[in-house]
Amino acid sequence: MTSAFQFTLHQQAGAARLSTLTTPHGLLDLPAFAPVGTLANVKTLEPRDLHEAGCQLILANTYHLYLRPGHQLVEQLGGLHGFMGWSGPLLTDSGGFQVFSLAHQRKLDDDGVTFRSHIDGSLHRFTPESVMAIEQALGPDIAMVLDECAEPLNYAYLQSALSRTHRWAERCKAAHTRPDQALFGIVQGGIYPDLRQQSAEFLIALDFPGYAIGGLAVGETKEQMYSTLDVTCPLLPAHKPRYLMGVGAPEDIVEAVYRGIDFFDCVLPTRLARNGALLTPDGRINMRGAQYAADPRPVQEDCGCYTCRTFSRAYLRHLYKAGEISALRFGTIHNVWFMQMLMRQIRAAIASHTFDDFRRTFLRRYQIADQTARHQQRERFVAARQAKP
Amino acid sequence: MTSAFQFTLHQQAGAARLSTLTTPHGLLDLPAFAPVGTLANVKTLEPRDLHEAGCQLILANTYHLYLRPGHQLVEQLGGLHGFMGWSGPLLTDSGGFQVFSLAHQRKLDDDGVTFRSHIDGSLHRFTPESVMAIEQALGPDIAMVLDECAEPLNYAYLQSALSRTHRWAERCKAAHTRPDQALFGIVQGGIYPDLRQQSAEFLIALDFPGYAIGGLAVGETKEQMYSTLDVTCPLLPAHKPRYLMGVGAPEDIVEAVYRGIDFFDCVLPTRLARNGALLTPDGRINMRGAQYAADPRPVQEDCGCYTCRTFSRAYLRHLYKAGEISALRFGTIHNVWFMQMLMRQIRAAIASHTFDDFRRTFLRRYQIADQTARHQQRERFVAARQAKP
Repeated sequence: MTSAFQFTLHQQAGAARLSTLTTPHGLLDLPAFAPVGTLANVKTLEPRDLHEAGCQLILANTYHLYLRPGHQLVEQLGGLHGFMGWSGPLLTDSGGFQVFSLAHQRKLDDDGVTFRSHIDGSLHRFTPESVMAIEQALGPDIAMVLDECAEPLNYAYLQSALSRTHRWAERCKAAHTRPDQALFGIVQGGIYPDLRQQSAEFLIALDFPGYAIGGLAVGETKEQMYSTLDVTCPLLPAHKPRYLMGVGAPEDIVEAVYRGIDFFDCVLPTRLARNGALLTPDGRINMRGAQYAADPRPVQEDCGCYTCRTFSRAYLRHLYKAGEISALRFGTIHNVWFMQMLMRQIRAAIASHTFDDFRRTFLRRYQIADQTARHQQRERFVAARQAKP
Repeated sequence: MTSAFQFTLHQQAGAARLSTLTTPHGLLDLPAFAPVGTLANVKTLEPRDLHEAGCQLILANTYHLYLRPGHQLVEQLGGLHGFMGWSGPLLTDSGGFQVFSLAHQRKLDDDGVTFRSHIDGSLHRFTPESVMAIEQALGPDIAMVLDECAEPLNYAYLQSALSRTHRWAERCKAAHTRPDQALFGIVQGGIYPDLRQQSAEFLIALDFPGYAIGGLAVGETKEQMYSTLDVTCPLLPAHKPRYLMGVGAPEDIVEAVYRGIDFFDCVLPTRLARNGALLTPDGRINMRGAQYAADPRPVQEDCGCYTCRTFSRAYLRHLYKAGEISALRFGTIHNVWFMQMLMRQIRAAIASHTFDDFRRTFLRRYQIADQTARHQQRERFVAARQAKP
């Protein structure tokens, strides 16, 4: 890591860490949550919305941008920062996850992976070297090594995938040359402590400037996710940032920070918003619900987001029910704000030595209310079905 | 019209008028263009976007809001202003146009019109009295009388429609009681000077505080529209505002101001944006065009809108091609800004006695370039079809 990147640990509360990471495009206050801008845009939002919410880091997807508009075009137009008009820190994944979850007819070999585009069926190949070329052309502050995100509960397969992922990590490191970009390693190994240990040790020996934990939130239970973090976080060097990929449920973020994770990315908060599910300290609310038809209150009483400052639940429900595009935007503005406020509260709690209290209080209120809301929703659904002739 | 409404004519350049209209929710600088917020939202935008672009007047559709969420609900939530978070002047149409263009199985009689909702087929009835109740519940600053928007080239039918429209206008005026709402009459009569004269005389005798010209831009040629304005505008009282309904093409606005119109509404600029057609002084450009794939310039070099200040044509094309929701928003932000800038330029030109020059220069640049662009587009389309095996 060049001097542009500086990771500073300010305070710990148990395993939870308050820290900062400087990047060529500015500082990150950690723990942090990065919204996802798949195609170089956080759906329905623009850079000023993200700044207003206090977002410091945005993730964009290498697989998607490689397919369209193409990394050479993005590079020609000033890299991702210039292309999407975002002046703050950026991160790209390696495309590995999308190749294994989205692409068609993928064929994996030790050298790389061949696949067909999910858009037009065209044939493509990713190798560690080609992915490094793509990520260096895209030009985010943080790039990720190419890895294989294998099914987290298949020990035998994970073992063989792990040795391939490790050789790919070595080749990525060798191929990566941009001094203004930090290349992070990705610890894999599913839910198995011995595989996680093997992976962490191998990657630590390669001396990456930061480490991600991959392969979680892809099919295992929450308990398995948390216990995997329990064993994996202590294996990682204390003086380097730790990134939990693809995790964005509020309760998971609180639990992962508690176990020593520094930052996160996930489509969940923005995707939920487009589905009409809005986040509050009392759990998710389904904005299409009939109970909000005449509700003059904002989504969340004490929220400072533009949506809550301006619109009632009744208005938002009207827009969602009528299929108005603005509903998706107004919901996204709120959920993105909610996540940044959660991270702000987490940081403040660590700073003031009250993180354990915060965690207990937050989880009790969020999860109990959330379960109650979902239960009530199910009840109403059942009642509505039974009421039909 | 109560004292809350004050129309002041500041200057004339030929028939073109620079004026202001005060309303209970603020002042309108005229000539003005009102974007359309069909369902109490200008699609993809929020109130702060409209303020930023300098919009002073927004139109919402009575037919749509009556069907959902219902005018009683809107009234209960603070009227349209409170419901949609717009503190400036608002206007609602009477729903007549939508009943005759959108609704199913309409049955017209002298008392009113019965129709089925285009959403769920449910049965409804509009009369002059019911529409006045709806518009008074919605609570815009300017409301419109119920009229019949008949096919503009059918003289015999127009004649019978006109007498019904006139009786409805009388009944609307009798039923309208809100002192903080101005009820405008609508002059109909298609493209026929004698019918327009008959309609104008009848409505002027009813002494409405303002007059709209309806039934244009619905099937006649541009020349027929302009010649109808030539005969109709001089019939209207000089000391009252004149509103041309449903007209929003830049060239039509310049031509209508030239003939004495004070304000306009139309879905065109916002709908075009959602289709990828962006307005510039050199005509429309189709943002999906391959020629913009690597174009680093903004949509319009000298434009101050957020989109032009932040994004390249290449980025916008990428978002449109990828089907990103943000493309629709970024395009709408630009087109709404373009229209407000056009109105600002029109007002400045009238104020500085240069409107004739402005009109000539604007129309030459906009229309010639637009025709060239459309011609080139057609040529490319034909070439592409011929190139296919």
